[in-house]
Amino acid sequence: MTDALSIARDLVRCPSVTPADAGALGVIENILKTAGFTVHRVTFGEPGTADIDNLYARIGDSAPHITFAGHTDVVPPGDESAWSHGAFSGEVKDGLLYGRGAVDMKGGIACSVAAVLEYLAANGGKPQKNGGGSISFLITGDEEDISVNGTIKLLQWVAARGEKFDHCVLGEPSNVEVLGDCIKIGRRGSLHGMLYVDGIQGHVAYPHRASNPVPDISRLIVALSDEPLDHGSAQFQASNLEFTSVDVGNKAGNVIPGQARAKFNIRFNDLHTQETLRQLVDERLAKACGNRIRARIVWEPSNSNVFVTKPGPFTDLAVAAIEEVTGRKPELSTSGGTSDARFIASYCPVIEFGLVGQTMHQIDERTPVSDLEKLTKIYRGVLDRYFA
Amino acid sequence: MTDALSIARDLVRCPSVTPADAGALGVIENILKTAGFTVHRVTFGEPGTADIDNLYARIGDSAPHITFAGHTDVVPPGDESAWSHGAFSGEVKDGLLYGRGAVDMKGGIACSVAAVLEYLAANGGKPQKNGGGSISFLITGDEEDISVNGTIKLLQWVAARGEKFDHCVLGEPSNVEVLGDCIKIGRRGSLHGMLYVDGIQGHVAYPHRASNPVPDISRLIVALSDEPLDHGSAQFQASNLEFTSVDVGNKAGNVIPGQARAKFNIRFNDLHTQETLRQLVDERLAKACGNRIRARIVWEPSNSNVFVTKPGPFTDLAVAAIEEVTGRKPELSTSGGTSDARFIASYCPVIEFGLVGQTMHQIDERTPVSDLEKLTKIYRGVLDRYFA
Repeated sequence: MTDALSIARDLVRCPSVTPADAGALGVIENILKTAGFTVHRVTFGEPGTADIDNLYARIGDSAPHITFAGHTDVVPPGDESAWSHGAFSGEVKDGLLYGRGAVDMKGGIACSVAAVLEYLAANGGKPQKNGGGSISFLITGDEEDISVNGTIKLLQWVAARGEKFDHCVLGEPSNVEVLGDCIKIGRRGSLHGMLYVDGIQGHVAYPHRASNPVPDISRLIVALSDEPLDHGSAQFQASNLEFTSVDVGNKAGNVIPGQARAKFNIRFNDLHTQETLRQLVDERLAKACGNRIRARIVWEPSNSNVFVTKPGPFTDLAVAAIEEVTGRKPELSTSGGTSDARFIASYCPVIEFGLVGQTMHQIDERTPVSDLEKLTKIYRGVLDRYFA
Repeated sequence: MTDALSIARDLVRCPSVTPADAGALGVIENILKTAGFTVHRVTFGEPGTADIDNLYARIGDSAPHITFAGHTDVVPPGDESAWSHGAFSGEVKDGLLYGRGAVDMKGGIACSVAAVLEYLAANGGKPQKNGGGSISFLITGDEEDISVNGTIKLLQWVAARGEKFDHCVLGEPSNVEVLGDCIKIGRRGSLHGMLYVDGIQGHVAYPHRASNPVPDISRLIVALSDEPLDHGSAQFQASNLEFTSVDVGNKAGNVIPGQARAKFNIRFNDLHTQETLRQLVDERLAKACGNRIRARIVWEPSNSNVFVTKPGPFTDLAVAAIEEVTGRKPELSTSGGTSDARFIASYCPVIEFGLVGQTMHQIDERTPVSDLEKLTKIYRGVLDRYFA
């Protein structure tokens, strides 16, 4: 069975909790091979990380080349006994498919595979009626955790073969409340840093002989949190800096500590690059420190750059397909967390559209079966328009 | 030998690292028994603490009653191989007595015992020429750590026997740089508290759905640190609040945490009681929180109240004895940490005068032998004047 629900259930039944594959990529491989795709299974690894299975499958060898990207790994189920139906049972009840990955994003992959199969069946098994074009799948098992042996390396591997993508649809659950309410056309970048403040250790009874880093790091946290980084751009909401932890770890109640540290994360829009942002924050820190406070930021390396696919023919085509099926005109959004789209954006324009994200990562993750059917129709509509 | 140096060396040679006695109280017991004192050895304990030896010795049975207080326990020696001479060898080199406790405060005890013996020998073995008065020693082995089975309980034990103290000299190393530069006539109180701020946990990409306690606790730390508690009193420097730690312990860099906490200590003067101080800080916290920040302080129980022995005949007498021997007019100070004087102050006026504190708690703790001789003369001068 190659309808979206059947594929989704087969995928959900593989307990592919990241980084395990548990047979998930094999489900896709079998279907695509039967449909005439050339399928590559590629394993990536590096010291200190688990080896990860990846899949790249293509049909056709000329432009235009549209790729459907996704991941088969899922987050852990949590307390499995709390699920109404087994986390990996793929059960359907009252028109809802239950299971970890139902919306994030085995369901989305199933719809894209089903849509492509339908499209090919209606078009003589070829991407385009007049013989050209390519359709591919770019599927990884390393998205939910560290994302180092997945899409980022698979893209490099494909590029090294001399292949080029023209457009990409990533099937992440982009909709907020109802199918058709949101396409993601970009994502903010993400940058982590650790702020260190050095004081002088001493006894609380003699504060004039010490220099307490606790009020000082507090001043810096307030200063860096309060001043906006920007006020948003045409496609993006405002960039934002959040301190996620502040720690001293001093157990001696009579001792003024010698150092304090605070961890922060910045989600930044297209008004910044990593470099200009680091410079901006370092400058603000220096200003807040004045001549008195000794502080420094250690920046973590980041592969999360900001990207945006500017509204144009490709987004128009997706909007039209969505409107046709759902009657809704989706918002073109750039909000939310990061995804593998940040890697894909370096190779071709990418949009994200999939199921409704409400239950993702939760107990009883689930999707209406009718959404699977509608999303399959939408992807089919995208293909029809793309190769028209 | 009952000169101060001999007694000090005998005491230093007992490795009485708190809470061990290691024979230290026995050294004092033997000398005082020989001199005609009634000596009591009392052991105190409570669940979860080590049993502690204490000593109370008195000669005479009428007022005025002056007591010399002190402790024979010492802090650990640290890296013993780093000492120029063994930490418990009691070696004298170039006129300096080396060893843990040399100044804090086995040296001080030795001088008081030697001075009392000299005084009694010169006065027919009685505290006062005309037959009245009492001299006692109130010595504990529990000062350097938790101070729960020492002076505080020994004072209660003595009081339960119906005995009263009129004045006390505590031989802690009160001098800052040179013998005679400082008498402590009071100590600030100490109060510990933990500040908790509750936020709402969430994902850093969606800060509007969360409430970050990190900038909020930072604001409160700045507010409580910056506003002075007072500007000092006649006998005291200003009270002071120090945050000693701030902790969240959030390892997830993409998560806004749900709670933050910060530990603080207040050293407070005689413009406050524990109760008024807690009220003042709680009020300032409420003001800094406004209607938005959810915060609370959990106060630790404290037995460290502020006390002061107001300058008068007793302090004048000590100043005169110090001036006669050293040529210096000591400052009447209330600065620094806490000591057992905070317990004694509930029973009688107490002053602290002993050796020079510079090397206390350090490697190569040491005192000039000449300081032992001078301090013995000073205590003798106190006794002469007290019973004149």
